[in-house]
Amino acid sequence: MRAELVFTGSELLLGHVTNTHGVYLGQELAKLGIEVILQTTVGDDWELMERVIRGALERADLVITTGGLGPTTDDITKEVVAAVLGVPMVTHEESLERIRHHFARRGAEMPAICARQARFPEGALVLPNDKGTAPGALIEREGRIIVILPGPPRELRAMFEASVRPYLLQIPGRGEVLRTKVLRLTGIPEYAVQDRLRGLGVAGHPSGNPGLGYLTRPGEVQLRVSARASDPVRAERMVEELAGKITAVVGDYVFAVDDEVPEKVIGDLLTSQGRTIAVAESCTAGMVAARFTEVPGSSRYFLGGVVAYSNELKKKLLGVPEEVLAEYGAVSEQTALAMAQGIRRITGADFGLAITGIAGPEGGTPVKPVGLVYVALTGAHDTVCHRLLLPGVRAAVRIGTVNVAFKLLKGFLTNRGQPRQTLSRLPEAAGIENLTYN
Amino acid sequence: MRAELVFTGSELLLGHVTNTHGVYLGQELAKLGIEVILQTTVGDDWELMERVIRGALERADLVITTGGLGPTTDDITKEVVAAVLGVPMVTHEESLERIRHHFARRGAEMPAICARQARFPEGALVLPNDKGTAPGALIEREGRIIVILPGPPRELRAMFEASVRPYLLQIPGRGEVLRTKVLRLTGIPEYAVQDRLRGLGVAGHPSGNPGLGYLTRPGEVQLRVSARASDPVRAERMVEELAGKITAVVGDYVFAVDDEVPEKVIGDLLTSQGRTIAVAESCTAGMVAARFTEVPGSSRYFLGGVVAYSNELKKKLLGVPEEVLAEYGAVSEQTALAMAQGIRRITGADFGLAITGIAGPEGGTPVKPVGLVYVALTGAHDTVCHRLLLPGVRAAVRIGTVNVAFKLLKGFLTNRGQPRQTLSRLPEAAGIENLTYN
Repeated sequence: MRAELVFTGSELLLGHVTNTHGVYLGQELAKLGIEVILQTTVGDDWELMERVIRGALERADLVITTGGLGPTTDDITKEVVAAVLGVPMVTHEESLERIRHHFARRGAEMPAICARQARFPEGALVLPNDKGTAPGALIEREGRIIVILPGPPRELRAMFEASVRPYLLQIPGRGEVLRTKVLRLTGIPEYAVQDRLRGLGVAGHPSGNPGLGYLTRPGEVQLRVSARASDPVRAERMVEELAGKITAVVGDYVFAVDDEVPEKVIGDLLTSQGRTIAVAESCTAGMVAARFTEVPGSSRYFLGGVVAYSNELKKKLLGVPEEVLAEYGAVSEQTALAMAQGIRRITGADFGLAITGIAGPEGGTPVKPVGLVYVALTGAHDTVCHRLLLPGVRAAVRIGTVNVAFKLLKGFLTNRGQPRQTLSRLPEAAGIENLTYN
Repeated sequence: MRAELVFTGSELLLGHVTNTHGVYLGQELAKLGIEVILQTTVGDDWELMERVIRGALERADLVITTGGLGPTTDDITKEVVAAVLGVPMVTHEESLERIRHHFARRGAEMPAICARQARFPEGALVLPNDKGTAPGALIEREGRIIVILPGPPRELRAMFEASVRPYLLQIPGRGEVLRTKVLRLTGIPEYAVQDRLRGLGVAGHPSGNPGLGYLTRPGEVQLRVSARASDPVRAERMVEELAGKITAVVGDYVFAVDDEVPEKVIGDLLTSQGRTIAVAESCTAGMVAARFTEVPGSSRYFLGGVVAYSNELKKKLLGVPEEVLAEYGAVSEQTALAMAQGIRRITGADFGLAITGIAGPEGGTPVKPVGLVYVALTGAHDTVCHRLLLPGVRAAVRIGTVNVAFKLLKGFLTNRGQPRQTLSRLPEAAGIENLTYN
């Protein structure tokens, strides 16, 4: 089954907003086994929009339009679709009533102009909009399907999930379904991941079957594993098989899979253990604390911390001895350990996490280059320090450090009391190394 | 002058990556007075791509393609353009030499397949690629222009700036140029901004002239003011006039204009004054510290701070008196002031900034609702506390607080010693209020 997407809105042509519909609909349709063959973005121009929709209906089995359902005369999508199909516009009384009601609740009368939002091409199935006033529509016509969705992403997604996906799921012969899994790696540059996977014989083309795509973000390399099959179970098995092979080679660098939120996982671990944590941050300067507290209710286990950006504060607030700083420097195993023990002592938390490193662009030396970071973890029974060499520029080093710190913390909380696995160190300037077990 | 954009790449149709070319090229072309009438995204499918490029050349004066310049057989953009124009592909010796050289530098021989990257439609002007191996091309043909750009955004942008923009600038009669200004507001919800501007008689349509567009992000409302005119100076004057009217009404809520980075502005102020700052954060929990330290070299003026997420840490680390917490609560003017004075005292910084509030979703009461935040600032000579009521959910309250805090801090550093202006408070639950002058 082949689909075309038609995005309407002059703001998209002017570059005022990023089009996120292509990613959402592309992924959702692929999951259903529907192939998107063309996306077109057109402004509020009747003639051009008509030509685009007419062309799409000639090529595709399914045409999805977005936007242009507002009450003003700029909003012409439904009217253009009606013209292409050669059917009149008619009022959908139930929708009209709902829009009137929407205004009445606010003590206002419906502006006459808003009645347009209740008009649809004759024969359309009206799709309710739970998040806004503009309903959508679905029209079947000579074996083709046209779906008309609103422009705001929140409204579009809710309508797709509530009405469009269930409808499409009932259509037989859609084609092969796509399944994906995203492995999120940190602490290793993209080229090093590729080097290691080459040994696997994984071709690594995003549109292969199974497919493998790379996406680099600051402090992170994402591997998207995908597979297509007529049977979803088979597609899932293909994904798991390739993901398993990849994990065997670079699993040490995986800090999250799919939509997993590391700070949430750690919060759940701490909650189930009834323990608390506090953090001492130098180069990440509050980023770990900010991430912890993105989770509602994190005050149950997260006490707070110290941002010891200057050496003075490392001494004053965390009690790092002057001699340690003088002898080993602020970016050292010894300082990281003293910071972790200091934050645990002064806050009374069960666990202390400390980070000190060189984010750059300045401050690096041959012995202590930009990207060198120490992460120390301490609890009642054991203390450990990891030495990292993170790739990339300042932002990448900082975000990468946060990702690695959460990964290490998760391991620390999960394997307490067990012998610790030493992570391998990359030959090049990237990797994670365990330094200290007390 | 009318343009069409043709984005190639199956990964765009599958929704694997967000297309950012539309925003970049849409804005850049609008600045040059070139109107984008259609954007099309097509996969690595010869027949469909040929039809799309042929159609674009029939409608538009300028066609820009992106992607499909790699060495593999999936990459067909140049070949399709040649077929549409009916010209053969020829080798560009200089590009071939450059690609060979690229590999030689790494001690490798050029793979035969890479010679494809040096082949172009006959008559093309080759555009060098400073950021990658695939050169682009520009072809003039019967009054039409085709520009072939690489897919990676970094390469595309560099090539557009170095080669395409200068070329387009020399073409007369491009049309009206567009100028824009973005006002970034915080601490006020979108509907309240609209209510206030309605009194101005500003229609507020993004494609008006002058135009006004709204974009809501967590903790922020962006107003995009734009104007088109044949004369850039006139367009700029129109923008300034409307922006001035808007600022007169809601200027109190503007925390940044265009690409201004508040933490950078504050860093420059502190640097020029030779002063230092430290922060005490409760509900923002490190976000202000993290933002300060995004700026390279911020260690010159930013010492660090305390994330006092629990009451215990507010007492232990910042010395907030037990009685203050008991009598007024953690979210109060008194606690904020004690936190600011505490962080200044324990760090020895010239200025102390403190934040305490209720980010939600839980913890709100009728008297102290979600969104209530106190921001206190203290220096050697004066201390001030602001009471905020921020709209939105947890993330919006937290990011909004950071934005407001930077705005207030900038005012505090700029107007030291001068009488302070009291900001107006919105009748509804949103606004900024000054509470304390000592």
